[in-house]
Amino acid sequence: MSTFRSQERLQESLNLLTTLLEKQRVIEALTHKQESKNKELVEALVHRQNLALLQRKLRDLHPADLAHIIEVLPQADRLVVWAELEPYHAAQVLLESSRSVRDWLVAETERPRLVALLGQLDPDDLAYISDSVDPEIVAEVYQSLDAREQSLFQSTIAYPDGSVGHLMSPEFVSVRDGRDLGGALEDVRRRGELPPHTEALFVVDARNVLRGALSLKDLLLREPSAQVSAVMSTDVVSFTPQERASDAARAFERYDLIAAPVVDERGKLVGRLTVDVVMDFLRRQAQSEALLRAGLAGEEDYFAPAWTSAKNRWLWLFVNLLTAFLASRVIGLFESTIQDLVALAALMPIVASVGGNTGNQTVALVIRGLALDRLTRANTGHLLKKELFVGLMNGAVWGTVVGLAAAALYGSVPLGLVMAAAILLNLVVAAMVGCAVPLVLQRLGRDPAQGSSVLLTFTTDCMGFFIFLGLARAFLV
Amino acid sequence: MSTFRSQERLQESLNLLTTLLEKQRVIEALTHKQESKNKELVEALVHRQNLALLQRKLRDLHPADLAHIIEVLPQADRLVVWAELEPYHAAQVLLESSRSVRDWLVAETERPRLVALLGQLDPDDLAYISDSVDPEIVAEVYQSLDAREQSLFQSTIAYPDGSVGHLMSPEFVSVRDGRDLGGALEDVRRRGELPPHTEALFVVDARNVLRGALSLKDLLLREPSAQVSAVMSTDVVSFTPQERASDAARAFERYDLIAAPVVDERGKLVGRLTVDVVMDFLRRQAQSEALLRAGLAGEEDYFAPAWTSAKNRWLWLFVNLLTAFLASRVIGLFESTIQDLVALAALMPIVASVGGNTGNQTVALVIRGLALDRLTRANTGHLLKKELFVGLMNGAVWGTVVGLAAAALYGSVPLGLVMAAAILLNLVVAAMVGCAVPLVLQRLGRDPAQGSSVLLTFTTDCMGFFIFLGLARAFLV
Repeated sequence: MSTFRSQERLQESLNLLTTLLEKQRVIEALTHKQESKNKELVEALVHRQNLALLQRKLRDLHPADLAHIIEVLPQADRLVVWAELEPYHAAQVLLESSRSVRDWLVAETERPRLVALLGQLDPDDLAYISDSVDPEIVAEVYQSLDAREQSLFQSTIAYPDGSVGHLMSPEFVSVRDGRDLGGALEDVRRRGELPPHTEALFVVDARNVLRGALSLKDLLLREPSAQVSAVMSTDVVSFTPQERASDAARAFERYDLIAAPVVDERGKLVGRLTVDVVMDFLRRQAQSEALLRAGLAGEEDYFAPAWTSAKNRWLWLFVNLLTAFLASRVIGLFESTIQDLVALAALMPIVASVGGNTGNQTVALVIRGLALDRLTRANTGHLLKKELFVGLMNGAVWGTVVGLAAAALYGSVPLGLVMAAAILLNLVVAAMVGCAVPLVLQRLGRDPAQGSSVLLTFTTDCMGFFIFLGLARAFLV
Repeated sequence: MSTFRSQERLQESLNLLTTLLEKQRVIEALTHKQESKNKELVEALVHRQNLALLQRKLRDLHPADLAHIIEVLPQADRLVVWAELEPYHAAQVLLESSRSVRDWLVAETERPRLVALLGQLDPDDLAYISDSVDPEIVAEVYQSLDAREQSLFQSTIAYPDGSVGHLMSPEFVSVRDGRDLGGALEDVRRRGELPPHTEALFVVDARNVLRGALSLKDLLLREPSAQVSAVMSTDVVSFTPQERASDAARAFERYDLIAAPVVDERGKLVGRLTVDVVMDFLRRQAQSEALLRAGLAGEEDYFAPAWTSAKNRWLWLFVNLLTAFLASRVIGLFESTIQDLVALAALMPIVASVGGNTGNQTVALVIRGLALDRLTRANTGHLLKKELFVGLMNGAVWGTVVGLAAAALYGSVPLGLVMAAAILLNLVVAAMVGCAVPLVLQRLGRDPAQGSSVLLTFTTDCMGFFIFLGLARAFLV
């Protein structure tokens, strides 16, 4: 019978594990308290039974599920689970864990175990997580690799994070273009295995230059006497190790790729990029973007000490306080005006807030356009014009609404007019700045998703206060 | 020789197309102006040549690339390109386009062409985009399908957007568990083709109940006399059509799936879910989340009329104005206090802004935890306690800094103390509300990514003003 893993299965495993860990804690607490030798023996037995059950349960779990479970457990429970994992299993869990939890696990593992565990990894996987490990330990593991593995490790680590070379795998199957299908099939049979996600074999010439791809489908369905070069597809999307991983990811999405060859500058086959790695990359990228936008330096382990978390948020808090202080100084310039008409103090946050919110809509559109390569030189001008026009229209419509409300509330038509004019002007400013900020950050080589929102809100706050209070000073008091 | 598509190739195509379209416009402008019959003939010839070149270029492009190019072209150019596409090609472009551009293309296409073009689609793809098309036209296309296709269309459209059933494809290959590998291979050969992304065949029993999966690798490498049931893997991740697509997507990521069987409640095989569709789903989800967070109702075509765009943003603007007005009323309660000490007007936005920003950090962490299923009943309490503690610490540290600055700036120690206390309290409020809001929205069945930020900012604004001005009234004036 088939066994199916699903969300429910994972939840069940988690619940069972939690119960087992709970028991384990109770038993340990008891063992500490109990004095009688007899009782101790019984407890020890129960303890061992429970542990055996835990081990059996853990062995059955997929490493990705284990990584997930470790992620949601408090640190004490994590250590119990972690200690019970066999080296190969533990190594796979390290690969699947988030960066913050991986760092923590590595830090909590004794050196001999860590070395044994890292020795279980493929060289490219070792390179992938080597940032989390003490370089000395990496060097020790590296020494234990054979020459071929060492060179694989080197070739992966040579490429920076975020490049195709960093993500590619050395596992692929290639066939020579001169063979027929029967011969190619024999080669594959002799090899005895195919790496996962192999939908096609890469076809190379005598100099190992990529010539095309031969799908397993054709290998299965076509006449064995047909020539590989006649059957293969020559329309192959390939990458170079230097290319940005995000560009490659876009190509994977666009062309529905499962695996693609990676070639060096002379066209020689050097590796393979697979869709599972690409999906993983995309997920991590989307997550870190969402966190960066909220001003978090990066992933945060839920069970990290509060002190670490507090410091993780300081840079943003500092930047935020600085911008808020500057905006506050703008208000300070108009203290006498506010003294004369205190209603201004209550109304000014509205102008600033509406500007910030509509500006951030523009920012979101521009960032998305940049991320999807949809903003070209030709249509950027078009977008700017349109956003300005949208700002003008919305400013006219909603400025009128708010102006009427303010006039009614404070019984002053001039106050309503100033409010309406300030909102209109601030929305136009928001549209301009909302377009310009991400484009300029991108031009400067910065990630527009990171700083745009702060810069925009700072501008719309300052300008909102300045425009509103300035108009009020000129026309009202 | 292999031909490679890459980012550069796409850029080249785009540039060439733009030039051709430019020429086309010039020619058309000339043709309008010129009177002489002779000249007209020449122009017409050039026109036809240019168009032929354009057509040839378009035929060579991958539908995904074409969709991208159409996306970045102004509406007039889009129509020229769109008119030149053959029905099959055009239908694929519709599939690959973003929702807003697809709707626009459909609206711009004459009914006979649209019917011809939709007739080229697979029934499940037709169902997928049927939301963009006038139901009458869908019905007309539906009538032209044969009985099997009609039932495929029905079974896809029966499942709501966001479910596995909506995304699954009826294209899969199954083999009976009673056969040997040689027989299975013969079956596949007789079929003559395999759907894309087939890494394994699904194994079913006589009642079409899923029993396991037979990888192409094993089909290629094992002895032809081996039994399918002996070689197949029984550890297969499967889904039901009713399951949420986002849960399935998480399983694809977690277990590195390429394709997975979809079974009904009795375990019978009904469809197949493939990684390309899942990636597409994830991308659309990530995009719409980023846009929703900024308060945009959804995707916006960059070339849509400004009026449409303005209205797309009204709901958010309205909500924002409403909350800003309420916060403004809180300030209104303290107008006499501000009158007595106008420095309060300048300082109060700092308290509100710091609360909003740190609260949004908490919101981002909680939303991410919910999205990744990392928040369990056990660790939610832990997270809340920790966030409160972080809020307290940051409030103490930064409240002191800001308090000192305010005291120095306005030469008043009591004012500095009130400022410090207000920041401390507002950060604690922000931590509590930042945890509670996404959790409550999730419990209510709402998407926490959508409303959390507005609700949080509203609370921290109102509470920030209230705490600061309240403390000031009590202790300063």
